[in-house]
Formats: sequence, C-alpha cells, structure tokens
Amino acid sequence: MPELRRDPVVGRWVIISTERARRPSDFTSPPPARTGGPCAFCAGQEQRTPEEVWALRPDGTAPNTPGWLARVVPNKFPALKIEGDLEPSGEGLYDRMNGVGAHEVVIETPEHDARIEELPVSHVAEILRAYRERILDLARDGRLEYAMVFKNQGEPAGASLEHTHSQLIATPIVPIMVDEELSGGLQHFRLKHRCIWCDIVRQERQGQARVVLDEGGFIAVAPFAPRFPFETWILPVDHQSAYEETPIGDLSALASVLCELLRRMGRTLGEPPYNLMLHSAPLRARALDHFHWHLEIIPKLSRVAGFEWGTGFFINPTPPEEAARYLRDGDVHERRASAG
Amino acid sequence: MPELRRDPVVGRWVIISTERARRPSDFTSPPPARTGGPCAFCAGQEQRTPEEVWALRPDGTAPNTPGWLARVVPNKFPALKIEGDLEPSGEGLYDRMNGVGAHEVVIETPEHDARIEELPVSHVAEILRAYRERILDLARDGRLEYAMVFKNQGEPAGASLEHTHSQLIATPIVPIMVDEELSGGLQHFRLKHRCIWCDIVRQERQGQARVVLDEGGFIAVAPFAPRFPFETWILPVDHQSAYEETPIGDLSALASVLCELLRRMGRTLGEPPYNLMLHSAPLRARALDHFHWHLEIIPKLSRVAGFEWGTGFFINPTPPEEAARYLRDGDVHERRASAG
Repeated sequence: MPELRRDPVVGRWVIISTERARRPSDFTSPPPARTGGPCAFCAGQEQRTPEEVWALRPDGTAPNTPGWLARVVPNKFPALKIEGDLEPSGEGLYDRMNGVGAHEVVIETPEHDARIEELPVSHVAEILRAYRERILDLARDGRLEYAMVFKNQGEPAGASLEHTHSQLIATPIVPIMVDEELSGGLQHFRLKHRCIWCDIVRQERQGQARVVLDEGGFIAVAPFAPRFPFETWILPVDHQSAYEETPIGDLSALASVLCELLRRMGRTLGEPPYNLMLHSAPLRARALDHFHWHLEIIPKLSRVAGFEWGTGFFINPTPPEEAARYLRDGDVHERRASAG
Repeated sequence: MPELRRDPVVGRWVIISTERARRPSDFTSPPPARTGGPCAFCAGQEQRTPEEVWALRPDGTAPNTPGWLARVVPNKFPALKIEGDLEPSGEGLYDRMNGVGAHEVVIETPEHDARIEELPVSHVAEILRAYRERILDLARDGRLEYAMVFKNQGEPAGASLEHTHSQLIATPIVPIMVDEELSGGLQHFRLKHRCIWCDIVRQERQGQARVVLDEGGFIAVAPFAPRFPFETWILPVDHQSAYEETPIGDLSALASVLCELLRRMGRTLGEPPYNLMLHSAPLRARALDHFHWHLEIIPKLSRVAGFEWGTGFFINPTPPEEAARYLRDGDVHERRASAG
C-alpha cells in the first residue's frame, strides 16, 4: 500500500509509492529506448490495460475492444490505490495515512505517435470532455478531495510511455499548491470582493503585452511572474471555479485555443517536451467566488537546480513579454533557423 | 538590470534574469560537450574571472594568481546585481523591484575534474569556511535579507560548468521556502517551546531507521517525508540557527560527515548528479530558538513532472528507511553490480 506522509515543518505531503519501489540500481539504468509501438495503449491492445472506465466510441463498439477514439483506464502502476480507508496515524512528530486515491490514464488517441495538437479540434474537445466526466465521477467518492489532471509530453518532461496520454490523480488531501492558490485568492477576495484571476484577465487584456491568444471566451497569457521560460496559462475569460462545470459546448473553443497554443510553442521552440496541469477547485466545492480554474503549460527548456529547490525562487531567463511576443508571432523558430 | 517579480496569487517571487536573456533557439541547442579543461576556474586562468573576494592561499601568494586551494569570485553572469537600489514599484495587481543581490562562485579546487568528496577533509572544511566567511561579509549589506549557498553537481542537476564549484546567491527578500520553514518552526515553538529540528534529531536518534551517519556532533538522516529518492539532510545535533555562527573548529566534523555521505551516495547510486542546499537563518537574524540550520542533499535520480509542478505533492518511489539502509551499508551498488 502506498503511504502519504507529512513533512512536520512545512506541512507538505508526499506519496511514498511502494508499488513503484526502486532499488538503487534501477535509477542508474538508461531510459528505455524508443519503441515506436505498438504498446498497451494502441488500438487492438485493449486487453493489456485495466478495464476502461470511460471511452469515446462513436460507432458503439464493445468496451475494451478496438473502435475507440479516446479511452480512460486505471493506471496499472498507480501512485495511489482506490481500495481501503485512510487510517491516519501518528508516530511522534510525524503523520501518515494510507495512500488512498485514484490514478487514471487518459489515452488520447489510438495512434502511437500522435501529438495532441495535431489531432482534430473536435477530438481534443472530447479529451477535454473525458477530464470533465472523470472529475464528476470521482467527486462522488467522499474520500477524495482533489483531482489533478496533468499531461507529461516527452521523456524529459517525465513521460515514461511514448504513446500520447494524460493522467488524473485524485488525492484525499487538497494539495499544498492548490491550497496556496485558494488562500491567495481568498485573501484578495476579502480585500477587494473580486476574483484575482478575473482581475488578472482584465489587466492583461488592457495591456496586451503578455496576451498570446484571446478567442471564444478563453485567453492564453504569459503570467507576469512565470517560474519557467515560455510558461503560459489558459483561463476562461468569464469567472468559473470548477472546470467540470464548464458547459460541454464551450470545450471546442478551449480545445481550439489549447491546440493553437501548443502548435505555436512547437514552431517557436522546436516541439519541446512540456507539462500541462489543470488547476480546478477542490472536488464538490462547486461555485467559489475566489477561485478561477486555469490550465498551466510549462515547456521543459531549462534545468531546475539547487537555488530553486532551496529557495522556491525561480530564475527565468525569458521575460514573459518576450515569450508572449514570440508565441503571438508563432513562426520565429523557423525563420531564425532558415536565417542561419 | 534583472528584475524581481511577485506572483500576485501565491506571493512567490521570481527573478527575470535579463543578463541571461535567451531567445527560443538558445533553448533548442544541445548542451555543451565536455571540455575536460582548462577553464576559467582552473589554476593559471585567474584573469578570466572577476577579481576574487576570498581565497585560501596557504603560501601567501598574491590575489588573482595561482597558488590558491579555493577561491570565491563574483559570478560573471550574475542572476542578481550588487549595484543599485531596490526601487520597488507596482503596476496594477503586480509588484516588482530591481534585481539587487549578490551572486558568487566558490571554486572549490584548482583541479578541473575533482569531485568534492575526493578532496581531503581539511580542504572541504576550508570550503565550508568560505561559505561562512562570505555569509558574514554579505550580512553587512543591509539591502540583503538572505544568503543561499548551493551546489549543482553534474549537468543533469543544473551545473552549466564542469569545474567543481558551489554558488552563493544573496537576495533582498527571504525566499518563500525558507519563510515556510521559519513559519513552521515558529508554530511548533509556540506550541511546544522546543525547536522542531531538535525534536526531529531526538526522534531519529531514538528510532535509528532513517539515520545514515551520526558523528562529531552532526547527523545525516533521510527525512520522514522526502520529496526525492535518497534525499538526505545533515544537521548539527546541538541547536544552532545560523550556519555562519558555527565555530570554525566544528567545520572539520561537518566536512567529514558530508564527504562520507557523498562517497556513500556515489557508491550506492553510481556517482549521481546532485543538488546541495544550505538552509540557514535569514541574515543578521542570529540566534533564533525556532530555526535550526541544515544541509539538504538531493541526488538527481528521477524526473519532476506535471503532477509535482501542479500540486506540490511529490511521488517518491524509495521509502526513506530503505534509502537510509542502503546509505548505511554503503557499498550496495558495487555488490549488486558484481552480482550481475
């Protein structure tokens, strides 16, 4: 059973993931070579995954058989386990509980080598709908407090499997970084009676210097104080705290902005590895005035080193105004490359 | 001029480092090939660095000439600049100030290819003394609030230069992660009237399961809730909040524990890249009852991915009790390797 443990000083919880326990020699092995497929996530390999919990099957084929366009399955090597009770316990200064939670994989397409931004927008809208449906379903489990949807694209960004996919981990605790956002949002709301992200959207629309895209009710902006070069956020322009309450009809516009942003990042930065994270409200929190869901996309371009790990300060060599300008222009990398 | 910017939601400051500004194409270049030296940090190349601010010169040679055993110089490409005033200003929701601070490099040895743990303990004690002297000197600058000493060993851990060195960045703000440790420590002190790190040392010495080394007044332990596999902390057993107040006579014992730990990590994990960070009290804070300085060492064995960046939760595949057992045994990697 995985275990959740709390750092007694700063209150940060970690997952000690015994299912994935590694001996020292496992860390020193080189990363696996590219296989090119077919893998357990490819069409026709459905029996190699746990049974699907959601699928997009336009022609009504049977579960766990080919014919799907997107598929959600439990992770075969989950960081947290869905069975059992939390059984919190103490040991002197220390606190722990059982690693209860959900860990699911969203297989975004049956094709082994696709990148999400190359799929039709309507297909990506369905992937976004899968996130929504899975969050709504997991919210019915009272043991779970939060659902984090994320995507690791490329091995340097932490993807251990080539086949394009995203993941959902639902935790029995609201994660510390979400909690910090909730606290910061609440503090602003108490002072100003306004959502801080709504204020950010308004200020960015006025200045324009950090706006990358602004279409169909969604805005992509380089944040004022980004941790990473070319970090970009996508927010709904109108206030909404819970991603899963987005009307299904709005997901096409979101998919369109997301795909366009990823294509521009790809052209500007040479198809970089990246992480994508969905920050939504805690499960069952519903309509909060002081929180506003958003996607964060961080291309993996630089190394995080001792200064960052020691301080929480990040050194970012690219001002967000410049990053936004490159991403608005979109084809800078190609032009520079051909100019020598 | 570099700029400090504050995230309006969570209050985290970042450094927008214009000195190191990068165009998109700079990120896509491959890392530089190994040079093997001589580099600007090697003996005889002293003119290629800014003028030294501290040096260990046992035979009394002139500054900025050969003969030194360790040398501290300002960073030629500093993340923060020592000249100027902070000039904090606002822009709507946002806050910024000039990137005033110090960024120094501790060149640990004139030899290009040495690893710190291979140097004589007496030499490493002098490196630790250099940290102490530089912190004491920088504390006299009232604009600076904090000094973070850190070391990035190996390119995957963020080292951009091969020649073994550590760095010191002094900031005009107490970094958010240090602030969280200070708050956590203060909360515990107010409840219990005891230092939480003193309590940790006591509990670890009783249990022994996470203790790696305990010698000469310093203890190396795998923390109860480590973010990373094989993360290890070194603490003075007796309470002390400011590293720079460590008596010089105690630095040999610290050097001995540090070198022995690094050698064991090297044997167990195959000379991994790593980050080392010194967490000390803010400058001029002197004797705090609720803070206890410590070194954190994190071997770079796994990738940090979307879940970690999105939540602040870390998934650690190696229970600290196992990591400590391997590091106590010390030669596991060799035995496993020879066993096939």
